Amino acid sequence: METSVTPFNPPVRDIRFVLNELAGLAEVLKLPGFEEFGADLVDAVLEENARFVAEVVAPLNDKGDRQPPVCTDGAVTTTPGYAQAFRQYAEGGWQGLLHPQAWGGQGLPHLVAAPASENLQAASLAFSLCPLLTDGVIEALLTVGTDAQRRQYVPNLIGGKWTGTMNLTEPQAGSDLALVSSRAVPQGDGSYRISGQKIFITYGEHDLAENIIHLVLARTPDAPPGVKGISLFIVPKFLVNDDGSLGKRNDVWCATLEHKLGIHGSPTAVLLYGSGKGEVGEGAIGYLVGEQNRGLEYMFIMMNAARYAVGQQGIAVSERATQQALAYARERVQGRAVEGSPGPVTIAHHPDVQRMLLTMRALTEAARAVSYVAAAAHDKGTHHPDAEVRARNRAFYEYLVPIVKGFSTESSVEIASLGIQVHGGMGFIEETGAAQHYRDARILPIYEGTTAIQANDLVGRKTLRDGGATAHAIVAAMRDTLKAVEAEVGRADEADRAGLRLLRDNLDQAIQAYQDAVAFVLEHAASNVRAVFAGSVPYLMLAGVVHGGWQMARAALVCRRRLAEQADADPFYRHKLATALFYGAHILPRAFALSSAVRSGEVAERCGLQADIA
Amino acid sequence: METSVTPFNPPVRDIRFVLNELAGLAEVLKLPGFEEFGADLVDAVLEENARFVAEVVAPLNDKGDRQPPVCTDGAVTTTPGYAQAFRQYAEGGWQGLLHPQAWGGQGLPHLVAAPASENLQAASLAFSLCPLLTDGVIEALLTVGTDAQRRQYVPNLIGGKWTGTMNLTEPQAGSDLALVSSRAVPQGDGSYRISGQKIFITYGEHDLAENIIHLVLARTPDAPPGVKGISLFIVPKFLVNDDGSLGKRNDVWCATLEHKLGIHGSPTAVLLYGSGKGEVGEGAIGYLVGEQNRGLEYMFIMMNAARYAVGQQGIAVSERATQQALAYARERVQGRAVEGSPGPVTIAHHPDVQRMLLTMRALTEAARAVSYVAAAAHDKGTHHPDAEVRARNRAFYEYLVPIVKGFSTESSVEIASLGIQVHGGMGFIEETGAAQHYRDARILPIYEGTTAIQANDLVGRKTLRDGGATAHAIVAAMRDTLKAVEAEVGRADEADRAGLRLLRDNLDQAIQAYQDAVAFVLEHAASNVRAVFAGSVPYLMLAGVVHGGWQMARAALVCRRRLAEQADADPFYRHKLATALFYGAHILPRAFALSSAVRSGEVAERCGLQADIA
Repeated sequence: METSVTPFNPPVRDIRFVLNELAGLAEVLKLPGFEEFGADLVDAVLEENARFVAEVVAPLNDKGDRQPPVCTDGAVTTTPGYAQAFRQYAEGGWQGLLHPQAWGGQGLPHLVAAPASENLQAASLAFSLCPLLTDGVIEALLTVGTDAQRRQYVPNLIGGKWTGTMNLTEPQAGSDLALVSSRAVPQGDGSYRISGQKIFITYGEHDLAENIIHLVLARTPDAPPGVKGISLFIVPKFLVNDDGSLGKRNDVWCATLEHKLGIHGSPTAVLLYGSGKGEVGEGAIGYLVGEQNRGLEYMFIMMNAARYAVGQQGIAVSERATQQALAYARERVQGRAVEGSPGPVTIAHHPDVQRMLLTMRALTEAARAVSYVAAAAHDKGTHHPDAEVRARNRAFYEYLVPIVKGFSTESSVEIASLGIQVHGGMGFIEETGAAQHYRDARILPIYEGTTAIQANDLVGRKTLRDGGATAHAIVAAMRDTLKAVEAEVGRADEADRAGLRLLRDNLDQAIQAYQDAVAFVLEHAASNVRAVFAGSVPYLMLAGVVHGGWQMARAALVCRRRLAEQADADPFYRHKLATALFYGAHILPRAFALSSAVRSGEVAERCGLQADIA
Repeated sequence: METSVTPFNPPVRDIRFVLNELAGLAEVLKLPGFEEFGADLVDAVLEENARFVAEVVAPLNDKGDRQPPVCTDGAVTTTPGYAQAFRQYAEGGWQGLLHPQAWGGQGLPHLVAAPASENLQAASLAFSLCPLLTDGVIEALLTVGTDAQRRQYVPNLIGGKWTGTMNLTEPQAGSDLALVSSRAVPQGDGSYRISGQKIFITYGEHDLAENIIHLVLARTPDAPPGVKGISLFIVPKFLVNDDGSLGKRNDVWCATLEHKLGIHGSPTAVLLYGSGKGEVGEGAIGYLVGEQNRGLEYMFIMMNAARYAVGQQGIAVSERATQQALAYARERVQGRAVEGSPGPVTIAHHPDVQRMLLTMRALTEAARAVSYVAAAAHDKGTHHPDAEVRARNRAFYEYLVPIVKGFSTESSVEIASLGIQVHGGMGFIEETGAAQHYRDARILPIYEGTTAIQANDLVGRKTLRDGGATAHAIVAAMRDTLKAVEAEVGRADEADRAGLRLLRDNLDQAIQAYQDAVAFVLEHAASNVRAVFAGSVPYLMLAGVVHGGWQMARAALVCRRRLAEQADADPFYRHKLATALFYGAHILPRAFALSSAVRSGEVAERCGLQADIA
């Protein structure tokens, strides 16, 4: 029985292809603020990142799964090896990759940080969550913290001496943060006493670093009810003295760790604030961030970045699951070729196994392309000298974030499930490693906003608010690519022509289906809001399928060009072209079904189908 | 935090609806051999079955998950409570439900046994596997065993004193049984000595019954290589003396239990034959079943029944996951209504949660309807006095088996995944119970033949072999239902008309898509077999979507009639009608995408897309 977990091999070649050929890395590196970074430096970062995550982090992935952290008397001991790996992560300067040089970071473009963090997440999703949350805390403090707060916390967070957490959820307040009830009482000295219970706090307690900086949502005594009465507080595990040394143990404690389906290596804490167990008396000492009652707004600053990062986690798990399945399929000998073969063949020769593997690869590569294109838009949206270009790119990025989050993570569940199926019965045995991806992936469409919440965002803030302007601009750009594919059909030889023609036909219909769905949303939002939201997730998934198809079509065109240029055809371009054409044949047609589901919302609402279930 | 597993409430009302209104129970009860069973008896069986599984078996489901069986020195101790429940199962006569009265069974139609076993499986999938495998052994012995073998084993198996297993898989021989290498050496006294290693043996060792009857595939010394050299043997854990008492401990031992993703309560054993540890010397003593070298053929007798039963497991897990999600959604208060509401509402009011719940319910009910219609065809195929009717029904049943297996189980993975999504973060916490269904469901598209193997069966034996005759007859019957829906659109009032019209339109297109796929399979099977098999799973899923839609359309027509007849409309019929119309709006459109994937196989093959991955 083969039961060895496949080592992780960072997909540097595909990453480079997407960076250079689809996301326009060269253009991004010319933006003001990034001029000092050359292509060489980016290469060096990618190489070193790949080496580090493959050698140091990846071997921890199934270890964390089998030997999760434990909580004893309020203190959490992480999986053996995690602390040392985190130290190496900190020493390598990885936490500072995209943070400003002024605070000890490296200030790289998001487009370069994106693949680095994707690879870290692929190496070990559970491990990567600690840096991810810390990134969010750094970004929040830099955006809305006072100068004193930044000086006090940010350098140590960027340096990996301390880590950060986001404390939003309470038992009664999950997706609906209006219900947050933790209290913050001012002490007259500028500080607050925080009390309450927070749940689902990722790395809420651990032994990877000497201090933990919690960002906590709570209500002051005179706060209005609902979302407009929530403030944001810094609550360090250990108070920080003026000289920067650690002071008293604050009154925040881990009550227990959750027993989860996946990401076992990541400690998910129930945190108690104000149980009186610390060295500061009763109530955790906290400090207001920004203004009172604007906590939720600040949290959303972090959340947008975190949502993008979780979208990348989807790609990361997908890549890992695909590598695992491919390795198994190319090794496992079982059955004969359907067209006849003298002896047994590896299962990678069976048409349906090929269909599954190509579905996995096509969805993964498409999601990666969409997410890097989004990262480039983020960089242009923040760094381009022309305000109009900045605005346009910002709108494009904002439109893509819920798609990156929703589509990549939903796809990762499908991909991880296919990964098990490729393994057959061996996939159901935990030691093989395929099952862990299936369990790990399942949290991704939930945390940092469920797919429905992403879809609401896509419908409300991203499609309706500008009257569909961004969506229409995207559709127009997609049609330009379609024309280029059309032209390429004419140039293609027999071997590629049928695939390109199918790509063109299916992309054409998929773009139309997408445009129809956008029109449906715009038309019915005012008159029948329930009908629109009944189809919001199908709309998001449709957008994901079509955006993925758009990028894969662009990839196909590049590959055709590269193959034509080369006397000695690089097999990478043939593989990539095949994957893109497969996407056109097998994945793009999903757009028809999804578009139909979007438009059926109106009928479903009229017939009272949906209300029936409540 | 709500973390209570929802108790199981057998869906007796929907079961009755499908039995009576869609599967024609009255007609089946008139068949020769079933005349003694009245509708009252069927009702009593269903009621008693529902009571038994809900009270006795369902509470064991999460217990088995948390406290799986353990193997110590070759002996397995099952989860506390399992042994007592199995005793009650045996005493209740449940094992004999569909076996002949001559052997101590009750000889009920498959159509009646189907819901009973579905409910047992829903109560606890892990528990139900022991009876399921025992059914297979009983059926095999009754079909190909000698009279002496039947007398020796069958009454105790039907009585639940002993249980049975199927021993096919070896480390190198999973889907490909040609690679089986276990050996059986004749001893000259009519018995054989069996040696080898078998893996994935469900209930291969346990403490629920006093003996275990293993059916084992092995090769005799002079057997030809490949599938034509495999014979089937009875290997009892304890030899059976002539007077029926238990004799020596045979040489078959549990080496270890697998550490699985799900169905933890079911012991999955690695069995060693011939390690010399027993009381019989080296080599397990076994007895040939039927003729030498025909073992695989006999195994397939069991396998068809087991495949149908596993399809029902898909429905069972789907039902359980849907009940769990519905209960949570109706209780969990979170967020406001999208159209505005004074205070927070239960999440069952949110359009996307409704979409998920209705998707779960619609797929579950459709799969149930398809499976009971298949069971009725089985009964008519074996008991109808007219040979032509028997043959037609047998062909219909045979065609449906891979669909019942493939579609119900693939759907169950989707449904269990949606069930977690409905729970949000709580779904990822094991104590809530949603995660177990997601883990349990994942084996269903794999064991008893993966979905690809079902799809090969559907393409090869079920579609091509009769030149598409059965498939075409089905399409014609579907079109009759379509005409009836068309007529109903004219009769409907404003409230139902839009939904019925959408059902008609989508069913029309789905039937056409199905017909196109069948035509594609027939047209290309000879010229381009790889192209056909590249789309075999999409073809199976397409067939599942359309057959489900056909049955849901029939259900919609019945509901409309019942609602028109009643002065006081029964809410059951309104719910069922809403579910059927939702299926038409949201599920049927998948047929377009799947049909496109089927037909793209030819292009994919021409462009060498698929081969690229090998």
